[in-house]
Amino acid sequence: MSAQGGSELPMAMLLVFGTAKIMGEVFGRLRLPNIVGEIIAGVVLGASVLNWVDPRQTAELADLGVIFLLFRVGLEVKASDLVKVGRVASLVAVLGVLLPLAMGYGIYVYNGSNQIEALFVGTAMVATSVGITAQVLASKGLLNVRASRIILAAAVIDDILGLVVLAVVSSLAKGEINILQLTTTAGISIGFTIFVFSVGTKTMGRIIPQMQKRLRGGESQFSLAMILLFALAVFATYAGVAAIIGAFLAGVALSDSVSRRVHDLAQGVTELLVPFFLASIGMALDIRVLQNPQTLLLAAVITVAAVVSKMLGCGLGALSLGWPDARRIGAGMVPRGEVGMVVAQIGAGIGTVSQTTYSVVVIMAVMTTVIAPLLINVTFRSLGQMPVDPDDIPIRIE
Amino acid sequence: MSAQGGSELPMAMLLVFGTAKIMGEVFGRLRLPNIVGEIIAGVVLGASVLNWVDPRQTAELADLGVIFLLFRVGLEVKASDLVKVGRVASLVAVLGVLLPLAMGYGIYVYNGSNQIEALFVGTAMVATSVGITAQVLASKGLLNVRASRIILAAAVIDDILGLVVLAVVSSLAKGEINILQLTTTAGISIGFTIFVFSVGTKTMGRIIPQMQKRLRGGESQFSLAMILLFALAVFATYAGVAAIIGAFLAGVALSDSVSRRVHDLAQGVTELLVPFFLASIGMALDIRVLQNPQTLLLAAVITVAAVVSKMLGCGLGALSLGWPDARRIGAGMVPRGEVGMVVAQIGAGIGTVSQTTYSVVVIMAVMTTVIAPLLINVTFRSLGQMPVDPDDIPIRIE
Repeated sequence: MSAQGGSELPMAMLLVFGTAKIMGEVFGRLRLPNIVGEIIAGVVLGASVLNWVDPRQTAELADLGVIFLLFRVGLEVKASDLVKVGRVASLVAVLGVLLPLAMGYGIYVYNGSNQIEALFVGTAMVATSVGITAQVLASKGLLNVRASRIILAAAVIDDILGLVVLAVVSSLAKGEINILQLTTTAGISIGFTIFVFSVGTKTMGRIIPQMQKRLRGGESQFSLAMILLFALAVFATYAGVAAIIGAFLAGVALSDSVSRRVHDLAQGVTELLVPFFLASIGMALDIRVLQNPQTLLLAAVITVAAVVSKMLGCGLGALSLGWPDARRIGAGMVPRGEVGMVVAQIGAGIGTVSQTTYSVVVIMAVMTTVIAPLLINVTFRSLGQMPVDPDDIPIRIE
Repeated sequence: MSAQGGSELPMAMLLVFGTAKIMGEVFGRLRLPNIVGEIIAGVVLGASVLNWVDPRQTAELADLGVIFLLFRVGLEVKASDLVKVGRVASLVAVLGVLLPLAMGYGIYVYNGSNQIEALFVGTAMVATSVGITAQVLASKGLLNVRASRIILAAAVIDDILGLVVLAVVSSLAKGEINILQLTTTAGISIGFTIFVFSVGTKTMGRIIPQMQKRLRGGESQFSLAMILLFALAVFATYAGVAAIIGAFLAGVALSDSVSRRVHDLAQGVTELLVPFFLASIGMALDIRVLQNPQTLLLAAVITVAAVVSKMLGCGLGALSLGWPDARRIGAGMVPRGEVGMVVAQIGAGIGTVSQTTYSVVVIMAVMTTVIAPLLINVTFRSLGQMPVDPDDIPIRIE
């Protein structure tokens, strides 16, 4: 009984979920990645074209969608597997930060911009948005090949490095560098990650079975998993890294100890919410800014630079594994997604990033998420689809 | 990389979900219904006590939670089973509307209030919030006993009757009754319900397998189910009934045609979100209004009247089934939850419901949801727990 209102949320959900699934299906039939169709559904529904959905209506669902996506991916990954590839992943992350930073900075300085704005553009080109890659690899059942593990480990390190770079650049913009504060920030985020990696899995292996024995509620293992997920997401943001890194670490910590049932239940949430995350990326883009040819040209140059610099930097870092894996890892690190936009917003907040530059960064962020699945499809093709039992698909989203 | 912000949503989720689960567990150990603990968790977190969570932060999750709860319940119910009990359910619904309406009106008029405000209080006492009962019965595996089916069918009819009563009372408040408009409203909502009941299951039985064969995306059956769920929720609000009625009907329409996998995935969403729905009921209550002894007394009288009138009315309607089922059905129809509050808000919007009366209605709505699970526990005890295979629990929430 709610003649007055109450239809806004179901209507927004119907539009976003329905359009994303339909466009994903259409793209799949065109032999393009479904995920690209779901991102473009957001462009169509957003301010660019139809303006049918206000992104704020589904923003919470989008945020929650990427948190659950990384949690689900973490559940499929063992901490020990990530630690094993730690050395290569570190090199991938470091070179994958330096090259985009240098290229973005160089292009903007060459273009006559001031140094600080150029540094912000470089920083926005640094942070990999691992959700897109994780989604594509998961849908192919390829999360546990070597290249995928290195991408996941490198994405965690990349996020920490990105945090440090952003802190340095923000300090420069404000004209003061506090070395002590920078070191503390970096130390806390690194410490948090290492702590969860090193003791998380063992601790959960002991705690989960014990607590489950004592709890009476139905699905108590799922409840415990959710509490750990939200707690680590909160801690991650306090430590300075993204909530999704905390969600990923929560998944990794639980990967040995929770039952198939918890995977299935978390999968339900992920299935429902990931289309909102993907569409939200598309909704951030207002293609009308492309009517300005100068913005269009700059955006094209920065997008190409973002793809090339990341593939080159990460690929170089993984060259010891041979060309095929180096290309895969380079392709997997390409998407920037929402993280680059956050950097640009911070720069705009300090007043050093112009409106045009903000639009350029948004276009770069969205375009890299559209290009990356295509690159991943090509570079991972030779690995084929892993043989999977249809009843026991670890994650199969899209 | 989001040093700035990004922790509000995970923090709100950690607080609400964690507190609800802990209080649910504590109540379970005290041999009280878990669900009552989860509602009281909302009282503790809300403005009444700690004021740690702004209800608006998790309002969307709460709305979505009750939508998924009713969808999951619908999935366990066959349309034909509900139609079979239609006659008794109609009598239960009609008497369960008339008695609370008369009692609320009578008490308020006796108390010296004006007629319109008294009618609004009566109307707020009409609408059963079936989510609470569904949750309790589902957690006991008792959704498919006769009394439960009658409760579910009666709740749908009750919602339509409540809509008509609210429309009449609102018209009276504005001093004009448009019979044509009233008949249209009633006709559309009844037509919508009958249409989904009569052709929904058969249509879905044909459409779902065909569409699934043609679709390529993973989990396409779940995607189709979600699209139907959101579409019927939207149509329901346009037809004038609550979104949750559309969600319930979507579940019923799909109950024969979707796989176990869809049940499990929907269950994941339900498990995650229902605590937000339960806590949101508690958060609506500000116990500080009870410091006024007059409000306290009036709230107590109205709450007792709400419980007694519903049990009596619905019980009388089901008397042909014998005392035990009549008591069960009466108890199951007691919770008012969010629906009564919506009525009071509409009355306050028209200006005929005072702040005190609004508080009284909120207290009645919250208290009936706390009392009902206790009554359901007692009246359904003799039916015991249905024997269930632990791997194949239809719904087991809490």
